[in-house]
Amino acid sequence: MFEKIVSNTRENTPMVHTITNYVTVNDCANIILACGGAPIMADDINEVEEITSICQGLVINIGTLNDRTILSMIKAGKKANELGHPVILDPVGAGASKFRTETVFKLLKEVKFTVIRGNYSEIKTVYKGSGTTRGVDADIKDMIEEDNLDEIIVFAKSLSKKTGSIIAITGSIDIVSSAERAFVIRNGHPLMSKITGSGCMLSTVIGAYCGANYEQIFEATAAAVSAMGLCGELAYDVLENRGTATYRTLIIDFMSKMNDSILRGGAQIEVR
Amino acid sequence: MFEKIVSNTRENTPMVHTITNYVTVNDCANIILACGGAPIMADDINEVEEITSICQGLVINIGTLNDRTILSMIKAGKKANELGHPVILDPVGAGASKFRTETVFKLLKEVKFTVIRGNYSEIKTVYKGSGTTRGVDADIKDMIEEDNLDEIIVFAKSLSKKTGSIIAITGSIDIVSSAERAFVIRNGHPLMSKITGSGCMLSTVIGAYCGANYEQIFEATAAAVSAMGLCGELAYDVLENRGTATYRTLIIDFMSKMNDSILRGGAQIEVR
Amino acid sequence: MFEKIVSNTRENTPMVHTITNYVTVNDCANIILACGGAPIMADDINEVEEITSICQGLVINIGTLNDRTILSMIKAGKKANELGHPVILDPVGAGASKFRTETVFKLLKEVKFTVIRGNYSEIKTVYKGSGTTRGVDADIKDMIEEDNLDEIIVFAKSLSKKTGSIIAITGSIDIVSSAERAFVIRNGHPLMSKITGSGCMLSTVIGAYCGANYEQIFEATAAAVSAMGLCGELAYDVLENRGTATYRTLIIDFMSKMNDSILRGGAQIEVR
Repeated sequence: MFEKIVSNTRENTPMVHTITNYVTVNDCANIILACGGAPIMADDINEVEEITSICQGLVINIGTLNDRTILSMIKAGKKANELGHPVILDPVGAGASKFRTETVFKLLKEVKFTVIRGNYSEIKTVYKGSGTTRGVDADIKDMIEEDNLDEIIVFAKSLSKKTGSIIAITGSIDIVSSAERAFVIRNGHPLMSKITGSGCMLSTVIGAYCGANYEQIFEATAAAVSAMGLCGELAYDVLENRGTATYRTLIIDFMSKMNDSILRGGAQIEVR
Repeated sequence: MFEKIVSNTRENTPMVHTITNYVTVNDCANIILACGGAPIMADDINEVEEITSICQGLVINIGTLNDRTILSMIKAGKKANELGHPVILDPVGAGASKFRTETVFKLLKEVKFTVIRGNYSEIKTVYKGSGTTRGVDADIKDMIEEDNLDEIIVFAKSLSKKTGSIIAITGSIDIVSSAERAFVIRNGHPLMSKITGSGCMLSTVIGAYCGANYEQIFEATAAAVSAMGLCGELAYDVLENRGTATYRTLIIDFMSKMNDSILRGGAQIEVR
Repeated sequence: MFEKIVSNTRENTPMVHTITNYVTVNDCANIILACGGAPIMADDINEVEEITSICQGLVINIGTLNDRTILSMIKAGKKANELGHPVILDPVGAGASKFRTETVFKLLKEVKFTVIRGNYSEIKTVYKGSGTTRGVDADIKDMIEEDNLDEIIVFAKSLSKKTGSIIAITGSIDIVSSAERAFVIRNGHPLMSKITGSGCMLSTVIGAYCGANYEQIFEATAAAVSAMGLCGELAYDVLENRGTATYRTLIIDFMSKMNDSILRGGAQIEVR
């Protein structure tokens, strides 16, 4: 599985236009480089169409959204759609404020996303805004665990069908789903939740992998999710007595050394 | 002293709404996680009230302020006041420009701060704007040293009395003061001044500790100041021949390993 | 050569006003501290004149430019010109969008730059906007290599003559040129292209070195270029099996340990 996703990325060096938050933007730029891509961060409405045009992928992350950048996100997204570029949505904090939720709904209406990646809670909010009237049960617990895995896979497939997007729900277990099929990915380490930006970084790796493997978006997304988790495992293995800042550094280090064979050896992926 | 400040923080995982500069924001998010909290960075006026409402503390840092974010700071601050959340002010660069100074004065007028943390020069500027007509002697030297320590403690107590805030003045010696009592803290290492953001990071740790220990704000603030300094010492001890970027990483590493017993063992605190 | 550039910087601690992108701003602040300066990031139009007035140098980097900050860049630049401070331009991505290119042209028209640093492609765009009608040959290849080195030196001298600025073109070989003379610098390591911000960081080191050595701007710029490259070499030598995030940390580490004698020992500089 994923025979050449990583090496394709290193060979093609996809340029990834990234409109993202100012909290984790540096880590995002560094991990795009580490995984084989080339980052361009640009969020001014005067240039986003041109910048996206010279890239092979677009990542939209609403982590520190504001009125100015929302317009840029929409403009860039529409242009990327027009050009057939993969467009990734990371709906950070969707559901935490009306402003975020409504922005996600607006983005979903204006832009066609190739991949949507978030935690379960964020993706449930996406579901609400994706054109159905049936609300998602708010009382489904927000963690993906073995006992609600089947239920969430059904949910993910249904959302993928509605949106036409590949859905990546990440947590202690990760799900990458199309309308018909889901990868269940069991890579990663709990310490990843103690650094900021592991989700944001993953979304940009998805952007790079998809940018270089646009004919196999579903596999590229799953490969990115697995590779990111695997980096978290490998980093933990050599962490010794160091703490979370070293852990962050090591995760990016391992991404810069990732190749097809390391990924093949470490990927914990099941198809459902 | 501070028996359970650190463990309370790890157990309660206080969410800390942080409106801060884009220079050190990533370090702030990572150190909030490292000390046991959960960071949310959000600065748009459309959402700051809602975001602050789901948090247990608010940190306002004016490092790269602008007209847009100042309004958000005030709105978030008022909401946090209304909800009784601890609100921390880090008046970065107060006194360096009229714009910063006036912003601090406006913030002091509109928002009630639980804790104000800055270096001596910044806190003197705060003093000028805190509703008295007596200007602070500009010729008091700006470094806290043994020979002007008593004088600065008097100043800190007086400012605490005027503002109703806990005052934390950090430098080669740190002072955390209420109106009646001051902690003199002798943790830290001079190399901390050679990385950006050690002050900003401290302010967010104060936010997390206070968010989880709102019944002992004075102690929580002193614990944060001491813990941050102690991390600087511990990091220096294992730095070997590495430089300042590794030092920054190690400081956050040690914060991620901080616990009540390490803090008790290393805190250098005197009550005056 | 450059006998005391580094030690002058450490002794004078030049304050460097930096208006830059939010992607690499933290690395820029940390490397300014590491090389002996003191960073101040401030981009609001209400304060940039005052902030630049208390500094010894100004660095303008258009990496994530927007309408708001462009006005601040111009205002700060004019003030720095008035005060005779060194002003460094880093035209990130010039040529990648009309907005960036036109902003560079506007900046060149409104502000007199002491040093302009970019890669060859960016500097060619600068050339187009520097008041000549002769377009630069777009088909000159964009990499500086031994076989087009002479040609690029002629180009750099000509651009320096036109602009009155020291021109620093960085790539696999670096050129620092005045109107009459050029330093060809062969420090650095290819892995530097796999971290974000090595160019941005260099521009701020130039700002610090020039701020502390304003009577020898040409030499200070070359010293900064050589020192940055040397840090890349020294970091690579101790990288062992780690990856790009550790590499970034080590580069800043070595900058924090740089001194006149290390630079003299490692500089690979030729005068043409």
